[in-house]
Amino acid sequence: MNPFKITHRDPSGARLGKLKTAHGTIETPFFMPAATKATGKHITTDDYQHLGANVITKALIANAFILSLRPGLEIVQKAGGLHLFMNFPEVIFTDCGGFQMSRGMFEQKTKNGLHFRSPFDNQKVVLTPRKIMEIELKLGSDVAMMLDDMSSYGVSFEEAKQAMENTHRWGSESLSIHQALREHYQSKQLLFGIVQGNFYPELRKESAKFISALDFDGIAIGGVAIGEPLDKMYKAVDAALPFIPKNKIRYVMGVGSPVELLELIARGIDCFDSVYPTQNARHGTLFTREGTLSVKQGKYAQDFTPIETGCGCHTCHHYTKAYLRHLLTIDEPAAKRLLSVHNLYFVQRLILDAKEAIKEKRFAEFKEGFKRNFGR
Amino acid sequence: MNPFKITHRDPSGARLGKLKTAHGTIETPFFMPAATKATGKHITTDDYQHLGANVITKALIANAFILSLRPGLEIVQKAGGLHLFMNFPEVIFTDCGGFQMSRGMFEQKTKNGLHFRSPFDNQKVVLTPRKIMEIELKLGSDVAMMLDDMSSYGVSFEEAKQAMENTHRWGSESLSIHQALREHYQSKQLLFGIVQGNFYPELRKESAKFISALDFDGIAIGGVAIGEPLDKMYKAVDAALPFIPKNKIRYVMGVGSPVELLELIARGIDCFDSVYPTQNARHGTLFTREGTLSVKQGKYAQDFTPIETGCGCHTCHHYTKAYLRHLLTIDEPAAKRLLSVHNLYFVQRLILDAKEAIKEKRFAEFKEGFKRNFGR
Repeated sequence: MNPFKITHRDPSGARLGKLKTAHGTIETPFFMPAATKATGKHITTDDYQHLGANVITKALIANAFILSLRPGLEIVQKAGGLHLFMNFPEVIFTDCGGFQMSRGMFEQKTKNGLHFRSPFDNQKVVLTPRKIMEIELKLGSDVAMMLDDMSSYGVSFEEAKQAMENTHRWGSESLSIHQALREHYQSKQLLFGIVQGNFYPELRKESAKFISALDFDGIAIGGVAIGEPLDKMYKAVDAALPFIPKNKIRYVMGVGSPVELLELIARGIDCFDSVYPTQNARHGTLFTREGTLSVKQGKYAQDFTPIETGCGCHTCHHYTKAYLRHLLTIDEPAAKRLLSVHNLYFVQRLILDAKEAIKEKRFAEFKEGFKRNFGR
Repeated sequence: MNPFKITHRDPSGARLGKLKTAHGTIETPFFMPAATKATGKHITTDDYQHLGANVITKALIANAFILSLRPGLEIVQKAGGLHLFMNFPEVIFTDCGGFQMSRGMFEQKTKNGLHFRSPFDNQKVVLTPRKIMEIELKLGSDVAMMLDDMSSYGVSFEEAKQAMENTHRWGSESLSIHQALREHYQSKQLLFGIVQGNFYPELRKESAKFISALDFDGIAIGGVAIGEPLDKMYKAVDAALPFIPKNKIRYVMGVGSPVELLELIARGIDCFDSVYPTQNARHGTLFTREGTLSVKQGKYAQDFTPIETGCGCHTCHHYTKAYLRHLLTIDEPAAKRLLSVHNLYFVQRLILDAKEAIKEKRFAEFKEGFKRNFGR
């Protein structure tokens, strides 16, 4: 049974929907901040729930493989699952596979899976579809992602094709293993498939067809937002989208920036995750309706207004640009938390506004208006 | 006029009182967390105001000299003073002098003052009584501390005596300059004197007499809690106390640990500041009624209870020891904030309980009961 239901459609292609999970029904579109290691960086799960006025983070994404190394499955299971371990009662996604391949611990891939060396104890670990399905089920996330093989930006067609074929094989295996586990453990965990194919449109098309033909609960497009020019990201997504069923929840992994979020929402994407807002915040780059600003700049040294006037976030409620700049100047780590709160609030608030616009069938106008002010 | 009024006395010598400042009347005894650079470390001024249930930080201590270098007086003044700059509407103390001498930027002392080199632009700065009185007034703190000269633990009688004599000279100068400035600028800023004398009881006595004879609004005992054995700290305080008028607010600088706070409250000390709670927290050492615990220890890896059951702090309300240990294990900086919140809450809660005990004239019993459980 499809856990996703579309409730509103906008002429642009944008839509509102509801995804039913073991931890409640979540409205789409939604944006997930990262809780890779069961926490944000400088920002904790309670912060995610208290970003500011009228905004609450309804979903997070954690990393299944990394958590299986630290703190380890046993501890998370004894805590009663990942929700209780990190005290986040809303929806949790877990990812694995492609995402880690960019990390230092990746060693090689074979047809069976991905080979890693644990950065903690130097042990070899082979991630197979079975292994990762078991990990994700034990963690107790609401949505598990299949094991995928992600090729880097710039690789040859052959290399991209091979990664896609691994992804397809692992996808089929992930699905059948997950179905058996789900039945055996009476689990309500959902499983999403992942489309790969690098930046070769014909591979994206082939992958979208293959993954969509399998009985996943949702379809993700992975392997984008990995350093390619923006137009290539859109082209890869656009090559896949026509072959992904409209009635399934659609997730573009690793996006992103405020404008990219709106552009993808207009394409009927329902779900996002990215470290873009927090990574920018940690470097002092902040989102406002009028575009980004770098609060480190000297011109803010005596600016005693909040990052954005009228912003309802915790940080804008308490501090001025001059003060935040001071914290960055003295290298106070707390600044990274305060600035992350602002950017995440901005994105969550933007999605709320986007939802209103979709409901009122004026999303294209809303998006263009936002871009006019925000730029880029 | 004495801004301090004693409202309750306990047979032990402990007392409750009220100190009137430009930012409201604060009840004593009170404990001030550090906001040396206009912020805590990993913890911000809004955190200080939201440590948990029924506890609010009513006073902070910042460092006048460091703030005059970064962000600089001009910025703080343009913000409307330190309260507005760091958004802390309660009582702010500023310190200077002795405190900095332990820092890398100290170069030498002369009869005129303390010579520093700015760590920011390498400029030479000489802190004289006039200079620091002007800085503190411009920052707009509620309580300014006089310029003092602090000798290290272990120095000779001669060296200690010389530092004390500098302190006395600078104290007289600070006072007369402050009186003139206060009048000129119609300021309500209070000025506290500082007793020095190292760990030589006869010097402590002499210094207490000298400083107490001057018309300060309050009397601090400085130059303790600088690495000496605990009994030497108490001896230094005890040597000075008989010569400090009972009707003035009395402040022991740099203390401290939960038990030290209670021992000094029993001696009629009204005011404290220390980085002890937060410094311990950042290293994973946490206060509970049953003593300290090191949450890094392996035995907490599967302990899914809060740091202290029944604790009303934000951290205990949200997270378990197992989770906090996980955050430390992965070197997540956010852990330092969460653990600092707990220890500060513990100290503020302890002071609240101490105040109740004083009101009910059972402070000695309360203190002994606490020590029995807490140890040390």
